Amino acid sequence: MKKNCILCEPGAREKVVLHGGKWRIILADEAWYPGFCRVIWAAHVAEMTDLEEKDRQEIMTVVFAVEQAIRHVMRPDKVNLASFGNMVPHLHWHVIPRFSDDAHFPESVWGQKQREPDPLVLQNRRALLPELERLIRQIPDKPVKAL
Amino acid sequence: MKKNCILCEPGAREKVVLHGGKWRIILADEAWYPGFCRVIWAAHVAEMTDLEEKDRQEIMTVVFAVEQAIRHVMRPDKVNLASFGNMVPHLHWHVIPRFSDDAHFPESVWGQKQREPDPLVLQNRRALLPELERLIRQIPDKPVKAL
Repeated sequence: MKKNCILCEPGAREKVVLHGGKWRIILADEAWYPGFCRVIWAAHVAEMTDLEEKDRQEIMTVVFAVEQAIRHVMRPDKVNLASFGNMVPHLHWHVIPRFSDDAHFPESVWGQKQREPDPLVLQNRRALLPELERLIRQIPDKPVKAL
Repeated sequence: MKKNCILCEPGAREKVVLHGGKWRIILADEAWYPGFCRVIWAAHVAEMTDLEEKDRQEIMTVVFAVEQAIRHVMRPDKVNLASFGNMVPHLHWHVIPRFSDDAHFPESVWGQKQREPDPLVLQNRRALLPELERLIRQIPDKPVKAL
């Protein structure tokens, strides 16, 4: 645990959908991006190659399980995956459902805004979140399947 | 092979460092980011979860091997990994050495520019590329090690 790292402990406002032994899956608080998930490694490490191979395999299996759940429930036009950590060098993956009508498409969500998203469309996507959460909670704590 | 997909075949100006059977590793033509690599899956698939598990494992093993080579040679402050495909929905991973003095840090390279990078610093980083290429060419064609 590193002092002052905001990812070392779940924040008070963080919506944790599933706690694994070595990771947690949260639903990000991004108004324009319902279904935007983060997979956060529990231990304070910066890079994927700081992890042992079995842990690398474990977190990627979880990331891909989240992608699968998002695709199944939300039918996005594309899924975006990213691990940056420039601001908070504590390993975490962004798993983002992207739609051609979303605020930034086809730019990355960190790029230039392209349009004002339709509030009704966002509301319809938010309505899918309980089902997404239900599927995510079925991800095994310790994935047993090989990647 | 999909018609008009610019990633289905290596472009004429694309610098391929290593051709694997199912993927290729290129050095991106990004003036501000010497060492910016892309790992491009050969077949035209859009998402990681479109791949079979063994292929998912293979491409991630290659991505992490590239991260390892970048860290060894360039000693970046952070490595950024991303798979988007919003513009070209053909699976590819960005593997990017990030430095606190680079053009966008701590923003993503797709975000707002933060500063003009020092040309001398860029030149020194470019001088590391032959060594980076040498290490990347040692990545096994078909990674044999488990992830």
